[in-house]
Parts: sequence; structure tokens; C-alpha cells
Amino acid sequence: MRYDLYYWPTIQGRGEFVRLALEEAGAGYRDIARRGDSGIAAMMKLIDGTGDTPPFAPPILKAGSLLIAQTANILLYLGPRHGLAPKAEAGRLWVHQLQLTVSDLVAEIHDTHHPLGTSLYYEDQKAAAKKRAGEFWSARAPKYLGYFEGLMSPDAPYLTGRRLTYVDLSLFQIVEGLRYAFPKRMSRFERNIPRSIALHDRVAARPNIKAYLASPRRIAFNEHGIFRRYKALDR
Amino acid sequence: MRYDLYYWPTIQGRGEFVRLALEEAGAGYRDIARRGDSGIAAMMKLIDGTGDTPPFAPPILKAGSLLIAQTANILLYLGPRHGLAPKAEAGRLWVHQLQLTVSDLVAEIHDTHHPLGTSLYYEDQKAAAKKRAGEFWSARAPKYLGYFEGLMSPDAPYLTGRRLTYVDLSLFQIVEGLRYAFPKRMSRFERNIPRSIALHDRVAARPNIKAYLASPRRIAFNEHGIFRRYKALDR
Repeated sequence: MRYDLYYWPTIQGRGEFVRLALEEAGAGYRDIARRGDSGIAAMMKLIDGTGDTPPFAPPILKAGSLLIAQTANILLYLGPRHGLAPKAEAGRLWVHQLQLTVSDLVAEIHDTHHPLGTSLYYEDQKAAAKKRAGEFWSARAPKYLGYFEGLMSPDAPYLTGRRLTYVDLSLFQIVEGLRYAFPKRMSRFERNIPRSIALHDRVAARPNIKAYLASPRRIAFNEHGIFRRYKALDR
Repeated sequence: MRYDLYYWPTIQGRGEFVRLALEEAGAGYRDIARRGDSGIAAMMKLIDGTGDTPPFAPPILKAGSLLIAQTANILLYLGPRHGLAPKAEAGRLWVHQLQLTVSDLVAEIHDTHHPLGTSLYYEDQKAAAKKRAGEFWSARAPKYLGYFEGLMSPDAPYLTGRRLTYVDLSLFQIVEGLRYAFPKRMSRFERNIPRSIALHDRVAARPNIKAYLASPRRIAFNEHGIFRRYKALDR
């Protein structure tokens, strides 16, 4: 199966969790909106509401006749097909449950720089963002990242055990993103989550991921995505 | 199958989306944390991190040997088993995708009263909440609710067509909640979403839902849940 991925072409954003899964799986895919204006137009057409199952927003995966949106839903579909999640129901639900908790964390990370609303500029909500970012680091990051850390057994290389799943790729991306957006806070925080950091390093060293990260397909972090580096929010 | 639901006993919250599905299905379930202190203790034990698949947070559904958390994940499990979602993969993914968009909307509704963080009181973030609530009603509610409205065909009674799914129950709850939390704003807004309002009324009239809403099992809205009525946020 050759996939078409539709996502904003200049950011990692939520699409990156899907890209990492496709890359690790060695799946054939086209990143449509990065193929120029016609690709962006094709994506905009998918979200204009006229199709049979119109997505609310990208990322969107076209898989044969299926059009699948919502990051965690796309991974739910891809996981068992590419050895990135168990095939049995109990395991599939458990990995999906963890991914939904990653989704919640991602939304909270986004809100550190946009607590008052996405249609306002960061500059117009800087004071609120400072407060929310402080809250995030004092209460939420320890809760979420402590949760994932606690799931890991000292003998198992990955979150759910011996085998890599798409949640491991997502946790890798969370560590990458927090290091980019909050270099000072994260460098102090990492000592609390040694197993997650080791997991991050293990994912980064996987051949397909390593090749992907070094390729032009990996978009650099910037101040338009989920993870944004604003000095005022990093102490 | 008899289920055990674990959720905070004094609020509707996210658990309500699960309760509505169980009630509509006529499924046998115990609402464990509402059965007194030992029920709450049992719930706290599930989230203390010591089990095999410890949930991050309630709601949690125990179904035989399975322990499932994350609202949308629980509904993904229940849906096809109780005629509340198609059994075929394409339909299951589509209904789940819609539910994940409901989840995103729910998080944004919550943040109208807690934009700076959940560990701060509303009173300590009232000015920010006013701004965020204004943003929500000018940009986000039209976008989300307009999306769901646009999905509905004039000839079909439910969101995905002829048959009720769990997403219809969730959209009913969104309308209920917004009416409670923002009576003024919502009464002006409803003219924009006539099909969603008709859907709400259709759900409310279903025998099992009607009986549930009139029962003591339906907890009243209050200022501890997702939907909170604060005068300052409703103009």
C-alpha cells in the first residue's frame, strides 16, 4: 500500500507523529502538500467539507479508498499493519490509549504559547503564556512525563515491552520537541526521566529513523508548530 | 458483559460521554466511584500506577479482564459491540475520528474557564478566562459546531446517516453542556446549527436516554466539571 499524507508543509506539528511511523515502517508515502501549490490545493480541497468523510483538520492519510484523519486514529490504522502495534485487541487498545494521552500532552504543550486562543498572536498573550508555561513545567510535565517514565520497566527497551510501537516514536518526538522549545527547563528536567531519555536515544539510533532525521524530509523545528522556542517561556 | 465504570462521582465530566453510551445501549454497568468511599478508593488504586496497564486518568472501563481508559478509546471499544458504531473498519475509523474531534472540542471548552492551568482557581484566572471564552465563541465554537452541522444531511436523522452512533450521543451532550454553561451565548448561537439542535432533540427523546436523564444516575451540571456556568464568561 502506498500512502498519501496531507499536512501543513512547513512545520512538523501533529503530522510528524505520522511521518515518524511511516518512516520507521519503511512505508511508501507521498507528502502531498510539500509537493508545491497543487499539493496544498489538494489538501485544502479535502478539508473544504464536500467529500463523504471530510476531515476537520490535517494530518490526513489517504490509504486506498480510506481517508483517515486525527493523528491517533491514523496511527491506530497504521500500527498493526506495519508491526508498530500489537494485532490483538487488548494490545491495540492499550497502545492507542497511550497515544491519546500523548495527544492530550501535545495539546497542553501547544497551549503554553497560546493559552488565550490560537487566533491571537503569541505577542498578544505573552504574559498569559508565561503563567501557563510555568504551570506546565511545575504541574503538567511532571505528571505526564512521570506517567510514561513509570510505565517503563528497567529490563524492557520500549514503553510496552520488548517491541517498539508507534507510541515510542511519539515519546521520542515529545523529548525532541521539549528540548527544542525549552532547552533550559528540559535540561534540568531530564534527570527525572532517565528511562524516557534512554528510550529517546534508542529510537534515534534505529536505522530508518536515523536516516529520516538526517534527510531533508525532516522539517526543522520552528516557531509555527507545536514546539516553539520563546525565550520568555524558558527559564 | 457487565461493565464497571470508574469516574469522579460528583461530576458529569468526560465520564458522561461513556455513561450516555452505556445507557443508550441498555448495558449493565456499575458506576463504582459513586458507591461510596470504597468505590473511590478502588478508582484511586487503578490510577496509582501499579497495575499492568495503569490508566493516566478516569474515565476507566473494566470489561472482563480489559481495563480501558481515555473516553474515545472506551467508546471505540463499546461502539461496535452495542450497535453504536459500524462493525466494518472504515465506518469504525470514521466514527472514532469524529469522536476525537469531539474530544478536542471538549478540551477547548474546559479551557474557557481554565486557560492558565488546571491547578489554579478560576478566580485567579478570570481575566484570561474572559478572553479565552470570547475567542472560543468568536472562532472555535463556529468552527467545530459548524463542522458537525455541515456533516448532517437534511434527510438523515443522525450524524453519519440513518443509524445512531456514540458520536450523536456526544454531540447531544455538547449542546446540553453549552446551554448550561453559556445560556446567553448559546441561545443566540443555536440558530446557526439547526440540524445539530434537531439531533439533540432526537437523542433526548430516545427512550433509554429519556429515562436516564430523568433518573438520579444523571448528575446535575455544576461548577466542577467541563461545562461551568460563570456569569462573567457569558454575555
